[in-house]
Amino acid sequence: LSQFEHELRDQPSKIAGLVARAEPIVDALASLLHRANFSHLVLSARGSSDNAARYGQYLFGLRNELVVALAAPSLTSIYGRPPRFDGALLVGVSQSGQSPDVVSVLQAGRQQGRPTVAVTNDIASPLATSADEVIDLGFETERAIAATGTYTGSLTALAILSAAMLEDSGVELEALRALPEQMAHTIEVVFAQLDGRELVGGPITVLGRGLNYATAFETALKLRELTGVPAEAFSPPDLTHGPIASLAPDSPVVIIAPDEPSSASLVEFVPRLRAQGVRLTVVSGDPSLLEAADAAIELPIQPIAHLTPVTAVVAGQALALQAAQRLGRDVDRPPGLEKVTTTR
Amino acid sequence: LSQFEHELRDQPSKIAGLVARAEPIVDALASLLHRANFSHLVLSARGSSDNAARYGQYLFGLRNELVVALAAPSLTSIYGRPPRFDGALLVGVSQSGQSPDVVSVLQAGRQQGRPTVAVTNDIASPLATSADEVIDLGFETERAIAATGTYTGSLTALAILSAAMLEDSGVELEALRALPEQMAHTIEVVFAQLDGRELVGGPITVLGRGLNYATAFETALKLRELTGVPAEAFSPPDLTHGPIASLAPDSPVVIIAPDEPSSASLVEFVPRLRAQGVRLTVVSGDPSLLEAADAAIELPIQPIAHLTPVTAVVAGQALALQAAQRLGRDVDRPPGLEKVTTTR
Repeated sequence: LSQFEHELRDQPSKIAGLVARAEPIVDALASLLHRANFSHLVLSARGSSDNAARYGQYLFGLRNELVVALAAPSLTSIYGRPPRFDGALLVGVSQSGQSPDVVSVLQAGRQQGRPTVAVTNDIASPLATSADEVIDLGFETERAIAATGTYTGSLTALAILSAAMLEDSGVELEALRALPEQMAHTIEVVFAQLDGRELVGGPITVLGRGLNYATAFETALKLRELTGVPAEAFSPPDLTHGPIASLAPDSPVVIIAPDEPSSASLVEFVPRLRAQGVRLTVVSGDPSLLEAADAAIELPIQPIAHLTPVTAVVAGQALALQAAQRLGRDVDRPPGLEKVTTTR
Repeated sequence: LSQFEHELRDQPSKIAGLVARAEPIVDALASLLHRANFSHLVLSARGSSDNAARYGQYLFGLRNELVVALAAPSLTSIYGRPPRFDGALLVGVSQSGQSPDVVSVLQAGRQQGRPTVAVTNDIASPLATSADEVIDLGFETERAIAATGTYTGSLTALAILSAAMLEDSGVELEALRALPEQMAHTIEVVFAQLDGRELVGGPITVLGRGLNYATAFETALKLRELTGVPAEAFSPPDLTHGPIASLAPDSPVVIIAPDEPSSASLVEFVPRLRAQGVRLTVVSGDPSLLEAADAAIELPIQPIAHLTPVTAVVAGQALALQAAQRLGRDVDRPPGLEKVTTTR
């Protein structure tokens, strides 16, 4: 087994460990959240963590009615002019906690007296020590270069933070406990039913929307990292506004649409994709989408819409692994990648 | 001349018309901005306008020290749950003013009693009638499907809004007046010096950062719309965090780096690109970047960093036109595209 596959399959147990610590984490956050006064969130992240932040836009919007700004870290790191963070709660997401530009945003917020939370896998990192509260993923260090558990772990951590903002977090925490089994089931289904052949043949397009816009981005990132083939994510409206012209006949398209309100928008879009003659892989719980697919992965039932991205993305990770194996790629040593980047 | 090339070349005169109206626009905005109390901006947009909003993140951050959130329109249009916009000034950007999801964000903000501004080319559109103040681009309707002037016009409109927030907007408005000549010069240089050959040969990668991150995205969108070839934009840190693995030897890479603080980050990145063996087209004012290029476009001097994106993107538009012509594409009828999309 490759290191990547080992870590991919290890996610259910990692997430179970994090969820088991959710109550004390909520208690620790609650005291900060209750004394802080904030009208919106500023999320700071890079790479896979940036996709976690994209998920946060929908999560905190839907569950907590909060506007979420994704920080432009180079305002601070390159231009040396952090904005005023009046009214903001700042959240930095970085598995290593080392990314200097993500750290610089949290530090600027703290200097302005704003509340700060770090999501990281290293409680001794600069990111953690720059924050008022830390959500420690508590995972064994990932060794594969392409992230798996640190992504699903970051989503879960943000869901815990969102729960901590609610009057009663009990229902939320209960729902989190079902995640590990759903993830394990999803991994088994992908390996039992597909073999990566449907994704081989030129640049790959991944579609998702709303809560699962982030899932599409993260799936595209995994595909690109592992296969070396260009892969790009879009929402249907953004594809319509231009890039649909570059979809060649037979080119592989992946739709990630768990059964949540945004999936209807993907259903409406299928005829246009069919007209372009693309090859369609669907990851969904929606029967009408699954029927329209050339290759389909049926997701287990997840009644909590805002938790669907945690389960769905493991299907995307598994698809990327299969495609890379089919292309004969070494998934543990993708050329040109580093695990921890220290770009300013 | 194609309609697209006509409109591309017509931008200096269009922008001159908008800049000539800048003072009365600033006066009209000033009264709204002075009575409104806001700590951050929420920008709502789609497609090319979404890239204008990405520019806004840096513009308002650097000039006005404001955090900018890009709205997630589907929170409102799909989930029916707009967030609380406490403390926000909402800005909607849509040339047609028809995009229902962009309109829905502004309407939700207004219902909550928040101040709203529309940037549009149609003062009778739903977007305009949903806003407290409208910045009317005032352009003849664009007929080419791929936007040119509505993009540079939206950037200029946002720069005017940013100026209106300053104590003294005089210096800002003066700087805007130099834009038309700089744009005209840039267009001439591209057509005199390049012929599109450097961009033909597989998927295209476009790099930019900071203020010109948006320029890279808009250039990639034009390339994709006009050539039908996949084209994708990255900042150097985001390319480092994964996608650099998919850069094949000889694949075309465009660096857009006007001489502003973020260009140093691109200079540092050149050796890594060289190591991948890519073909490098550089649009810049920075001599060390121009020297490293296989094909180079030297931008005219623009001392105001936050106005460089208006000039630089016309080079990107012209490069896209050249590449499409070289591929024998009909730039006025790119397959699969519509001018006004009405996606929810």
